[in-house]
Amino acid sequence: MALFVYKFGGTSVGTVERIKSVAEKISLARKNGDDIVVVVSAMSGETNRLTAMAKEMQAQPTDREMDVLLSTGEQVSMSLLCMALHEMGHDACSYTGGQVRILTDSSHTKARIQEIDDHRLRDDLDAGKVVVVAGFQGVDEHGNITTLGRGGSDTTAVALAAALNADECHIYTDVDGVYTTDPRVEPRARRLEKITFEEMLEMASLGSKVLQIRSVEFAGKYNVALRVLSSFSEGQGTLITYEDSAVEKALISGIAFNRDEAKLTITGVPDLPGVASKILGPIADQNIEVDMIIQNIADDDTTDFTFTVHRNDYQRAKVLLDQVCGEMDAKQVTGDDAIVKVSIVGVGMRSHAGIASTMFKTLAEEGINIRMISTSEIKISVVVDEKYLELAVRSLHKAFDLESK
Amino acid sequence: MALFVYKFGGTSVGTVERIKSVAEKISLARKNGDDIVVVVSAMSGETNRLTAMAKEMQAQPTDREMDVLLSTGEQVSMSLLCMALHEMGHDACSYTGGQVRILTDSSHTKARIQEIDDHRLRDDLDAGKVVVVAGFQGVDEHGNITTLGRGGSDTTAVALAAALNADECHIYTDVDGVYTTDPRVEPRARRLEKITFEEMLEMASLGSKVLQIRSVEFAGKYNVALRVLSSFSEGQGTLITYEDSAVEKALISGIAFNRDEAKLTITGVPDLPGVASKILGPIADQNIEVDMIIQNIADDDTTDFTFTVHRNDYQRAKVLLDQVCGEMDAKQVTGDDAIVKVSIVGVGMRSHAGIASTMFKTLAEEGINIRMISTSEIKISVVVDEKYLELAVRSLHKAFDLESK
Repeated sequence: MALFVYKFGGTSVGTVERIKSVAEKISLARKNGDDIVVVVSAMSGETNRLTAMAKEMQAQPTDREMDVLLSTGEQVSMSLLCMALHEMGHDACSYTGGQVRILTDSSHTKARIQEIDDHRLRDDLDAGKVVVVAGFQGVDEHGNITTLGRGGSDTTAVALAAALNADECHIYTDVDGVYTTDPRVEPRARRLEKITFEEMLEMASLGSKVLQIRSVEFAGKYNVALRVLSSFSEGQGTLITYEDSAVEKALISGIAFNRDEAKLTITGVPDLPGVASKILGPIADQNIEVDMIIQNIADDDTTDFTFTVHRNDYQRAKVLLDQVCGEMDAKQVTGDDAIVKVSIVGVGMRSHAGIASTMFKTLAEEGINIRMISTSEIKISVVVDEKYLELAVRSLHKAFDLESK
Repeated sequence: MALFVYKFGGTSVGTVERIKSVAEKISLARKNGDDIVVVVSAMSGETNRLTAMAKEMQAQPTDREMDVLLSTGEQVSMSLLCMALHEMGHDACSYTGGQVRILTDSSHTKARIQEIDDHRLRDDLDAGKVVVVAGFQGVDEHGNITTLGRGGSDTTAVALAAALNADECHIYTDVDGVYTTDPRVEPRARRLEKITFEEMLEMASLGSKVLQIRSVEFAGKYNVALRVLSSFSEGQGTLITYEDSAVEKALISGIAFNRDEAKLTITGVPDLPGVASKILGPIADQNIEVDMIIQNIADDDTTDFTFTVHRNDYQRAKVLLDQVCGEMDAKQVTGDDAIVKVSIVGVGMRSHAGIASTMFKTLAEEGINIRMISTSEIKISVVVDEKYLELAVRSLHKAFDLESK
């Protein structure tokens, strides 16, 4: 007998029929004697429907009222799921974020959870009930409804698992686990039984869209065992866990990539203190997020400075950089928005030399020119021309022996 | 400068455009310097949409979860209305029943308001904000979401007006006031400037569908001045007020009618104590509501007993009564479901004799046979064959001089 937190996203509760099959999954777990807390998102399409109405009322809908509006989405799903469970003979009770009391700060539309009152949930579990909680939402200290932003239901689930000290937190999605890379690019990609939190974090931030980054960080921080599974099929999914437990002893766990990057370079910058902030300050002021940053040391008292941004921000960033170039008396600005980032991720590389050279050699053998390199303790990222994406992913997948057996 | 509570029903907030025109009405009042608290219902159609989904989940949806589900309807309307007000430059803030803290008992789907915490609303009004509150809903002492039942938004509005000591409570509907009778039956029906609470209560309970009865009772109890107006046109509507204030000095204020009645008679009942409860007990046990009750004294130790029920309950009631007839050794059961009830209502009849005789004479002159009579202090009801409904209403409307001048 264990305590699980199950999280079902919008697609998993997108229709009356799907809500019923979610109820069946829960029913099965109850018959195994497990205690279940369920976190649900709004039915798919609902958030868009509500947002469209809001935009008809107000060009830029007020954040507070937007939260009031959108939080109804999960409230609908949670009550319908409880009814389905009741119909199957299970005792179940639903709670909004405010009713649980998931206390957040007051940053409407992107609030952060501060505290969870678990006493009602524990009482219900003790009484043999399934507890169904609205994902994505909370209340601030003044009782205002807040939301955690897109994907926030994952965070709700992890936070509840931490507060209740659950055995595992199951995130049900439309994929059946975390793969060594995207199976659409490399059909021989293999589902991982386990992956560490750090690796998952790198995979998530590098464009692997399985989980919201914040929920993975949260899970790591509070030692919540996270499992990614499919809502629509059977299977064990992928367990996201700690390095110390028996993780597969692979050097590399997976290959992530990101098609949404563009790079900008400013050359001939006078090599003086404060250069980086002068260049990136105006970019940050416009809320443009910068990903990789590289500065080369040049030999004539000047330096070259390169960074990547989201492809949608490329034109705006270039205009800003051209201004900076003039003001700094730098040489010129060049850019390229036909690039991709490919990364190998694995805790194994910490203790093994030669990973980087294997990566570079593999790409060289395929004639792929590396445009930028950036590394962290457990990942190596390279920027290459976008036409090489598939070739790079497949050759690295093979070189690091990730293929399914 | 006054404080008004405005209530808008589902039709008045049924589309994005209608919500915008509600916002314009409020905007106008703000420009006059008035403080406004708004109570909104769910957008028309929304409650039916949600109920249909619930019934797909569970044959008889659980009351608690039904309340969780349906209460999202007003939450959507209230946030959209606030956005529309913001777009017009007004400061506005929305609250669910739970956020205000409209405390109710725990009778899900038909809860009763016990207490209203007005401090957030007063703070907002003091700060120059329009306050928008979800109608129809509250929370019980354990924080469970409750609803007040169909039409409960009127009750919310009246209760808020009472708690805030508002100058008037405006109920915006799709009619522009209370009429002397239904204009579809008598085109010369006249809008009343004023009507007393007691008269309104009789009019409402007799089938005049303008206001929910409970809200009128509530308004009377807490001395809230209630005004019924149209959402879609200008005008002063009808003020529902106390007898002591300057009510029009008509003998009769209006003529109400109810097409949904059926009558049942049991004859030859042994005239013994406890007869009425023996007859009506089984009817009440089946939750069949009885309206008029008449017992005639007969001359041979037996009595005749007649009552009316809703036409939908006629067959069920007849079966029950046939059983009772056998058990009591009464003579026989007869019934008629092609009858209507027509009533004249007015506080003036308290102090004026001859009202009843004028009514009976008027009907007799038209050849209308009266099948039952029942009276209260401020109304006289008669049951007639349904084919006479229009004739009865129009001849009484003329006889009591109710026509528009």
